[in-house]
Amino acid sequence: MRPADLALHPSPWLKTLGPCGDVVFSTRIRLARNVEGYPFPARLKEPDPRREFEARLAGWLGEARPAEDLHYWNLDGLKPIERLLLMERHLISRELAQGDGDRGVCFSSAEQISIMTNEEDHLRIQVIRPGLAIDEALAMAIEIDRKLETRIPYAFDDQLGYLTACPTNVGTGLRISVMMHLPGLVLGEQMDKVFNAASRVGLAVRGSHGEGSKAVGDVVQISNQHTLGRTEEEIAEVVRAIVAKIVDYERGVRQHLLEESRARVEDKIWRSVGVLRTARLVGSEESQSLLSAVRLGISMKLYGDLRIGDLNELLVLTQPGHLQAIRGKEIRADDRDAVRATLLRERFKAESN
Amino acid sequence: MRPADLALHPSPWLKTLGPCGDVVFSTRIRLARNVEGYPFPARLKEPDPRREFEARLAGWLGEARPAEDLHYWNLDGLKPIERLLLMERHLISRELAQGDGDRGVCFSSAEQISIMTNEEDHLRIQVIRPGLAIDEALAMAIEIDRKLETRIPYAFDDQLGYLTACPTNVGTGLRISVMMHLPGLVLGEQMDKVFNAASRVGLAVRGSHGEGSKAVGDVVQISNQHTLGRTEEEIAEVVRAIVAKIVDYERGVRQHLLEESRARVEDKIWRSVGVLRTARLVGSEESQSLLSAVRLGISMKLYGDLRIGDLNELLVLTQPGHLQAIRGKEIRADDRDAVRATLLRERFKAESN
Repeated sequence: MRPADLALHPSPWLKTLGPCGDVVFSTRIRLARNVEGYPFPARLKEPDPRREFEARLAGWLGEARPAEDLHYWNLDGLKPIERLLLMERHLISRELAQGDGDRGVCFSSAEQISIMTNEEDHLRIQVIRPGLAIDEALAMAIEIDRKLETRIPYAFDDQLGYLTACPTNVGTGLRISVMMHLPGLVLGEQMDKVFNAASRVGLAVRGSHGEGSKAVGDVVQISNQHTLGRTEEEIAEVVRAIVAKIVDYERGVRQHLLEESRARVEDKIWRSVGVLRTARLVGSEESQSLLSAVRLGISMKLYGDLRIGDLNELLVLTQPGHLQAIRGKEIRADDRDAVRATLLRERFKAESN
Repeated sequence: MRPADLALHPSPWLKTLGPCGDVVFSTRIRLARNVEGYPFPARLKEPDPRREFEARLAGWLGEARPAEDLHYWNLDGLKPIERLLLMERHLISRELAQGDGDRGVCFSSAEQISIMTNEEDHLRIQVIRPGLAIDEALAMAIEIDRKLETRIPYAFDDQLGYLTACPTNVGTGLRISVMMHLPGLVLGEQMDKVFNAASRVGLAVRGSHGEGSKAVGDVVQISNQHTLGRTEEEIAEVVRAIVAKIVDYERGVRQHLLEESRARVEDKIWRSVGVLRTARLVGSEESQSLLSAVRLGISMKLYGDLRIGDLNELLVLTQPGHLQAIRGKEIRADDRDAVRATLLRERFKAESN
């Protein structure tokens, strides 16, 4: 599949309700790896050595065949809209999308595996799974890592572990990120519980696009900040425990809201449905917040015309890159609100009749 | 009809689209009159002289038969909710509803005529007509006044004219009030035009319940402040001219908005419809503002499921007294938002399918 076609074929896994899918969107594992004997990407002097090295990485990926059905793309060979699509799908990072120099990505058509080249590190292995699935995602990432290791001479130090461009990744090179939907805690004004629980054990709470992205509304990413001095399993254990606790908090608040403020919650959810069915202009942030309310409504069984997976999909499809790709043309920022509103009306009208 | 039944039979004229009905809700004429030889109501000592005098006024009204089909009610004989209903229907003033002492009202079943006793003055004659209809309303008020004069010895001074409790009403005792719907001017941020035009010729701009009531949102009442030193026709001429000018302003802005900001206006109107169809809690002020947007939408032909008259009716039916009377019981202020939302959903759902 060409990246340009992504918008027409939403990630197959988005519609799947994974474990704890009422509260957890997805689990993402990332391993940072580098190749022995080469400077880190930021120090690979342009253009020749970097270009040559990128081609070599692509070649190794092809030979190692770490998974079926992987296709490699050089980012500079893609249009800006295609890079934006890949980023909105979480197949590449914002850094890779907006960076320059030779760099690339290969991803599987199921979109659960992607490997970036010449991002901050030479290689970034990424596995995404729907819902809360740290063990499965980690196992798959390690399997890919093992296969790559057969071909690629990793920069590894017996004392430190895997060497990385940024010291915060040295050691395991592992980042576990769990994307959570916490509208109950936001409504109940208890988000401080999340920040406290996470920071006590050294986890970060970020927005949906990771480092540097704001936590907008009720979608947050919980991820580990330390990679050194502990095993992959120890890191997973800490994240698993905190996420389980936050899932409990969120479910508890939702139950409490149902019992104590049912009319207020129903009002919030149904108004959102009303606006989604009728509005002619919907901005990006408002769209996320309306869809978030409906997603909550479905999980609370207050709204039944759509499923949680449909909402996960809409949260992606209403982003600027997807909107433009769906309409098959560039749309000025001014006009996107109208296009987004039309898409939302079509979806919500269709379901309501 | 007992006042308690008002809620079940909305004013017949409310549904009628009068002249300039897209911008003008109604025209109201009020004449203040007093009886020679009696102190003004505020000085009628309780209880006997006031009670006796109120009975005499009621008797005169019965004998004079100023119009067909008038029924007289002593306000103290009515329940609080009935007084509230009469006020929300503009058949009595807030002052009469909330006052005490013997006082009353007679009104026709068509609800276009009402006569209050022992309000600020002994008699307040009122005629309401849908839309902009100053001449017709004034003619009807004068006809009633003439009939009353055959039985009631008015307090009249050859130099000053009709004598009234408050000096601002001396002379003609006439107040002309035109209730206008100006959402275009509010949206276009041009309400200062209205205030300027009105104040230049000594007219007042008030909220929908007259003196002391705030101009909430886009419903305002334009009325004369001076009653002395000019004829009824001269006063009417000034109000007629300014109202015509404001009608032109409002229509001009609506046309301009359609041409220049169609998407923004459609968005505002359709969102309002969306919320009215789905919300579970709607406060009194929000209700007025949502219904106002839909009324605008109908007049701009952007929404066609209801007619302007239906909206005029809903603006009255969603007020606290009407809500309680429709449900046939007292409803705590806390619960009214839910009852109001249910009523609105029923109306807007029924029309949308």
